Amino acid sequence: MEGSLKPMDAEQLREHAHKMVDFIADYYKSLENFPVLSQVKPGYLSELLPDSAPEHPESLDSILDDVGQKIIPGVTHWQSPNYFAYYPSNSSIAGFLGEMLSAGFNIVGFSWITSPAATELEVIVLDWLAKMLKLPKEFLSSGLGGGVIQGTASEAVLVVLLAARDKFLRKFGKESLSKLIVYASDQTHSALQKACQIAGICPENFRHLKAKQSSNYALGPELLSEAISVDLSAGNIPFFLCGTVGTTSSAAVDPLLELGKIAKAHDLWFHVDAAYAGNACICPEYRHYIDGVENTDSFGMNAHKWLLTNFDCSLLWVKDRSALVKSLSTCPEFLKNKASEEKGVVDFKDWQIPLGRRFRSLKLWMVLRLYGQENLQKYIRNHINLAEQFALLVRSDVRFEVLVPRTFSLVCFRLIPPSDLADNGYKLNYNLMDAVNTSGKIFLSHTVLSGKFVLRFAVGAPLTREKHVREAWRVLQEQANILLENI
Amino acid sequence: MEGSLKPMDAEQLREHAHKMVDFIADYYKSLENFPVLSQVKPGYLSELLPDSAPEHPESLDSILDDVGQKIIPGVTHWQSPNYFAYYPSNSSIAGFLGEMLSAGFNIVGFSWITSPAATELEVIVLDWLAKMLKLPKEFLSSGLGGGVIQGTASEAVLVVLLAARDKFLRKFGKESLSKLIVYASDQTHSALQKACQIAGICPENFRHLKAKQSSNYALGPELLSEAISVDLSAGNIPFFLCGTVGTTSSAAVDPLLELGKIAKAHDLWFHVDAAYAGNACICPEYRHYIDGVENTDSFGMNAHKWLLTNFDCSLLWVKDRSALVKSLSTCPEFLKNKASEEKGVVDFKDWQIPLGRRFRSLKLWMVLRLYGQENLQKYIRNHINLAEQFALLVRSDVRFEVLVPRTFSLVCFRLIPPSDLADNGYKLNYNLMDAVNTSGKIFLSHTVLSGKFVLRFAVGAPLTREKHVREAWRVLQEQANILLENI
Repeated sequence: MEGSLKPMDAEQLREHAHKMVDFIADYYKSLENFPVLSQVKPGYLSELLPDSAPEHPESLDSILDDVGQKIIPGVTHWQSPNYFAYYPSNSSIAGFLGEMLSAGFNIVGFSWITSPAATELEVIVLDWLAKMLKLPKEFLSSGLGGGVIQGTASEAVLVVLLAARDKFLRKFGKESLSKLIVYASDQTHSALQKACQIAGICPENFRHLKAKQSSNYALGPELLSEAISVDLSAGNIPFFLCGTVGTTSSAAVDPLLELGKIAKAHDLWFHVDAAYAGNACICPEYRHYIDGVENTDSFGMNAHKWLLTNFDCSLLWVKDRSALVKSLSTCPEFLKNKASEEKGVVDFKDWQIPLGRRFRSLKLWMVLRLYGQENLQKYIRNHINLAEQFALLVRSDVRFEVLVPRTFSLVCFRLIPPSDLADNGYKLNYNLMDAVNTSGKIFLSHTVLSGKFVLRFAVGAPLTREKHVREAWRVLQEQANILLENI
Repeated sequence: MEGSLKPMDAEQLREHAHKMVDFIADYYKSLENFPVLSQVKPGYLSELLPDSAPEHPESLDSILDDVGQKIIPGVTHWQSPNYFAYYPSNSSIAGFLGEMLSAGFNIVGFSWITSPAATELEVIVLDWLAKMLKLPKEFLSSGLGGGVIQGTASEAVLVVLLAARDKFLRKFGKESLSKLIVYASDQTHSALQKACQIAGICPENFRHLKAKQSSNYALGPELLSEAISVDLSAGNIPFFLCGTVGTTSSAAVDPLLELGKIAKAHDLWFHVDAAYAGNACICPEYRHYIDGVENTDSFGMNAHKWLLTNFDCSLLWVKDRSALVKSLSTCPEFLKNKASEEKGVVDFKDWQIPLGRRFRSLKLWMVLRLYGQENLQKYIRNHINLAEQFALLVRSDVRFEVLVPRTFSLVCFRLIPPSDLADNGYKLNYNLMDAVNTSGKIFLSHTVLSGKFVLRFAVGAPLTREKHVREAWRVLQEQANILLENI
């Protein structure tokens, strides 16, 4: 490549990467000018880009021009302060720097030997986080358990489901697969259903227990007990329970203490998905939401959601790491090495679905150090306060209602439909969401609770401040005025 | 966070990220000074870091000091020009810039709506690559198939195995799971075995067909035919065949044309894993290695191995995308949206294991544009030439032998053991590898072929030049001298 960009020349890297830093900093400066939800039409990009790769090199300037003119219009700006959809996906300076450093090393840390620092830093920061969450000591690396970074909560629930499946198949014989039963509330994330599909556990063996409105959509322990009894009578084998702290629909919190007792009595694998709300539990005043975690077998929380760590960084702790390794280990000749053979090291390839893995602990380590625990707690508290302010605004307008008590930083609300609307306000609220999202001013998403179409307002973008929440409410009221006038 | 680092302030980002750019550029400048294989002992890092996260913020300077003093000694430098182990994991300026931009946007592109550009750019660059590889048009997005970026080849083979499993279960009934048979050579990557474990296909149903030395460890079609006949007679259901172009042990190439005919005759799902060697097929003179790809159902290649695209970026093409979607789709209320409902868009969440996904197409797009096809071809050719030079050096020394013809950029070789050594030179060659790796001067890995311990010399790091290959050979000869003197 004489005369052109060399693949990895230090000075060319420096020159180009400085340019990219400025591009990204400028993006953050102008972030509020873009529609938060992309307004492009399907297929827009294929009309703007050539249909084959260039034969000859192009310049970074021409690429950055294209990013500005062709890519950014198609970006939905998750880092915008006006982003209130789904749950957040936090970026931060520390997380961003960690991603840079990880990309610079570009190691593939499947075994300890392929970069000891990658494995060891991961073990250490997962222990740090476990202590911040006051997880029981069985989840620390010093015992039989430990923590690991997965890509997503979907992968976290899949690996523990596989570990539990295989533990039970070893006990009951592999022909008993069709008898293994999974329990979870009907508010559980679809990732569990997908994990079951992957693991060969058929839909009929998944008990979606109805979480009632009266319990704010938390799973009732009595329902679980009943379901287990019925299954036992039928000769089935109850084996896996998934509880959620902070459901995706409404941030409901399953009662871990009571569920844990039942799980223990029946020897189920009890996994807790606290992907979003687990982050809040680093604050002493919210820690009680995971009381009962002592009786669980595994616990997951996504630092990439609400702890300033760039996507992906899903934290999973297990009490019995050997169960994971038994399910997920392979040891081909070409990966054998002295350190692994001597069994004194962790090879995280055996704790996860893929073989290869990035150096993801760097970004989490940098977040913890650049902000410190005190600022991370303040960060969480600020979002929860903002959500509470939003809930008060909604409550102050009689045309609206808040559907469940505000928990963490999520507010579930809707326009109360005039009584003569046949669809219980489904279309009215759908249209309200569509109108505000199409305005490009804010982006929020929805769910359905007890047949009602509900708008979800999730505070959690790093740049969101009080003025953004107030402006979001103004936009919502403005669109509501228009919609209600035209009913 | 008054007075301290704000989570995402544009000017603080600029200041800190410029500092990180210089740190990384300096790392590349001094890369050759570090032992390529980390020389630390297990547990080294826990002695250097505190056992809990800091309460108060620390400065970037103090963190970068720690990276230099505590982390880098524990890094195995995959980007070192003296790295010849496993297969490469390429970084490049373009790939690095793409990672930066992706971390800056930090979107989560599970559905089209969550950032249309992420999905559409991925569709477009996968079409570009398919054209560079001259894949049949059924793999392009314009038909019923298409390409997708997976994290790793492990995930790629898992998703197609699941799609094939479910296709056959839909046809034969779900109770036929225990009859489904997988075929592959015994040189196939362990990722397939792991995928089977995950998918509930038991080890007894995996036919590891012996790849013979006489065929340079490629799978013999007659063995496959025989195995299928035996299974059909026994009432089993052959359903999945995995061929490899460039095996991990010795870069063997399975005969796709003949295998494809058999797969077609028996209606098997035929997947090709070309994780490493597929990259070389962008050069017209190597394209013949994937002749026969017309008769496959899916084809995978890792741009993160040998195409200057930072890890992770594993490309997968399928002819029938609906088979993936049928296996991997879930559609909870909270993810429903107008664009998805209208079915005019791709939602890549239904093509993969996790829900969340990074904006990985950016880095591949930047690689293709900043280098252009011509330079990428030159890049591949240069490595293959360097490997050929290394093979000539090995052949010029009568104490050594090259075990299989050099294919692509991998040379499999060993010290010929004196005839009175009982273990066929296993220990001698193990010690040679251990000695050179412990020197820190080069890093290579091993395999076992027909009972022989074999050293693998894989050229593929972006910075490797002829002088590094010559110096590696000098180090190997030097250590061989010492070992042979002391037998």
